[in-house]
Amino acid sequence: MLIGQFTLPLAFDLAATFLFAVTGAMTAMRKGYDFVGVFFLALVTGIGGGLLRDGVFLQQVPAVLGSHYLLAVVVATLIGLVFGQSLNRLALVFLLVDALGLGLYTVFGAQKALNAGLGWVPALLIGVINAVGGGVLRDMMSREDPLIFRPGEFYAAAALAGGAAFAALALGLGVAAQPAAWAGIAVTVLVRVASVRFG
Amino acid sequence: MLIGQFTLPLAFDLAATFLFAVTGAMTAMRKGYDFVGVFFLALVTGIGGGLLRDGVFLQQVPAVLGSHYLLAVVVATLIGLVFGQSLNRLALVFLLVDALGLGLYTVFGAQKALNAGLGWVPALLIGVINAVGGGVLRDMMSREDPLIFRPGEFYAAAALAGGAAFAALALGLGVAAQPAAWAGIAVTVLVRVASVRFG
Amino acid sequence: MLIGQFTLPLAFDLAATFLFAVTGAMTAMRKGYDFVGVFFLALVTGIGGGLLRDGVFLQQVPAVLGSHYLLAVVVATLIGLVFGQSLNRLALVFLLVDALGLGLYTVFGAQKALNAGLGWVPALLIGVINAVGGGVLRDMMSREDPLIFRPGEFYAAAALAGGAAFAALALGLGVAAQPAAWAGIAVTVLVRVASVRFG
Repeated sequence: MLIGQFTLPLAFDLAATFLFAVTGAMTAMRKGYDFVGVFFLALVTGIGGGLLRDGVFLQQVPAVLGSHYLLAVVVATLIGLVFGQSLNRLALVFLLVDALGLGLYTVFGAQKALNAGLGWVPALLIGVINAVGGGVLRDMMSREDPLIFRPGEFYAAAALAGGAAFAALALGLGVAAQPAAWAGIAVTVLVRVASVRFG
Repeated sequence: MLIGQFTLPLAFDLAATFLFAVTGAMTAMRKGYDFVGVFFLALVTGIGGGLLRDGVFLQQVPAVLGSHYLLAVVVATLIGLVFGQSLNRLALVFLLVDALGLGLYTVFGAQKALNAGLGWVPALLIGVINAVGGGVLRDMMSREDPLIFRPGEFYAAAALAGGAAFAALALGLGVAAQPAAWAGIAVTVLVRVASVRFG
Repeated sequence: MLIGQFTLPLAFDLAATFLFAVTGAMTAMRKGYDFVGVFFLALVTGIGGGLLRDGVFLQQVPAVLGSHYLLAVVVATLIGLVFGQSLNRLALVFLLVDALGLGLYTVFGAQKALNAGLGWVPALLIGVINAVGGGVLRDMMSREDPLIFRPGEFYAAAALAGGAAFAALALGLGVAAQPAAWAGIAVTVLVRVASVRFG
C-alpha cells in the first residue's frame, strides 16, 4: 500500500488527545460539573476516538494507555477549570480547538490504519471515526445535542474531506506523510470553520 | 462443539448490515439530519452490532472493515435520502426491515461465536448483542427512546428466541446451518411482528 | 512491576458484575421496563465495565463470556423483578450495592492490568473505567442524568481513591493482594457513602 517510510510523529496523536480533552473540559464547565466530572469528560473526549481506533478497529493495545496521554488530559482539565467559563464565552475557541483536533486525529488515524495494512477505504473510515468518536461520546455522555448530527455543520464531512485530501496526496501523488498530513488538517479546519461561518 | 461444516454465507452479515443501515437512515431522515448525518447514523446502526461482536467480544479485526460493508451503508444512505420520508409513513416497513436485520445478525453472530470455539450460552449472548447493538447505538445517538426498553415490544426477546431456535436446531438436532438459520430468522421476525401487532 | 503472586480470586470480578447488575435491574424497575428490559439493563450494567477492561483496553477475550457471569446477571434480574420496587424505596440499598461494586471492580481491574504488564498509572485508569463503565452505560441507555457527572457525588473520585490505596499498599508497601484489595474497597465505599451523606 505504502512505499517507504510513512510515519507521522506521535505528537499528532497526543495533540489531538489534548485538544479534544480541552473541548470536553469546556463542555463540562458549561454544564456545571465538579472537578471530577470535568476530568472524566475531558478523559472520555480526549481518548475516546483513539480507543475506538486501536482497541476496537485495529485490535491493538490502545496507545492512550501511555502516561503522556493521561498527562495531556490532566493539563486539559486544569485549563478547563481555570479558564473554562471565560473560554466558553468565545465560541470561536471551542470551534478552533475542536477543528484542529478533528484534523489531527483524522490523518493520524488514517495513517495508523494504512500502516496496519488496511486499504484506503477502511483507513479513511478509521480516520473519521478516530476524529469524531471522542466528540460523539462527549455529546452523548453530557446529554448535548450531538454536534455530528446538527444539519449544516459539516462536522464528519470536514474530517472526511481532510482524510481524503491526505490519502490522495500521500497515496495517490506520493507526497511525504508530513506535508500531506498538514494539507489534510488544513482542509478539515477550513471546511469546518467555513461551514460554521457561512453555513 | 460443532460437527462438520457450519458456515452461513457472509451475505447474512452483509444483509443485516444493510438492513440496519436502512433503519438508521430512516431514523435520521425523520429527525431532519442532513446527508452527512444520514450517512453517519446509517453507518453506526449498520456496523455497530458487528463491531461489538468482532472487535470487543471475539477480539478479531472487524469484518465491517471490508469495502462491501461500507458500500452497503452507502446504498442504505441513498435509499434513506430518496425514499426516507415516504418510507417513514409506513411504520410497517421500518418494523420489517429491522426485524429481518435482527434475525440475520442473531444467527450470524451466534454462528461466528460458535466457530470461534465458544459454547452455546456465550454464543447466544453474542448473537443477541450483534443483533441489538446497532439499534441501541442508533437510539442512543439520535436521542430516541430506546426501542429495546419499550415494554411489550419483545425486541431483544425476539432475537433471543430466534437464536435459541437456531442453536437448538443446529447444535441439538444436527440440522445443517442454513436451514437452521432460516428457521431462527423466521422465529425472530414472527415474534417481533406478533408482539407489535398484538402486544 | 509485581513481585510474587498477586491474584485476587475471580469472585471479586463476579461479585462486582452481580452488584452492578442489581443496580441496573433496580433502575429498570424504576423506569417501568418489562422483564426483557430489566434483564438487558442488568446485563449492560453488570458486564459493561468488564467488557471495556478486557475487550477494549487489555485486548483479551472478555471474562464476562464465562457462564458464571451470565448466571450472576440472571439472578440480579430476578432480584430486581421480585424486590425492585421495594428496594428502590430504600435509596441506601442502591447506594451501598453500587459502592461495593465500584470498589470490587476498581481493585480487580487495576490488578488485571498490572498482571498484564502495565504500569500503575494505566492500571489505575483501567481500574476506574472498569468500575464506572457499567454505571455510565446504565445511565446513558436508560436516559438518566449520569451519576458520574452529578456534582458533589465523588463517584469516580471514590473509585480513584480506592484504587490508589490498593496500588499504594500492594505495589508501594508490598502488602499481599487480598488485604490490600479489601482496604481499597473500604476506601471506595467510605468515600462514596460519606460524600452522599455529608456532601
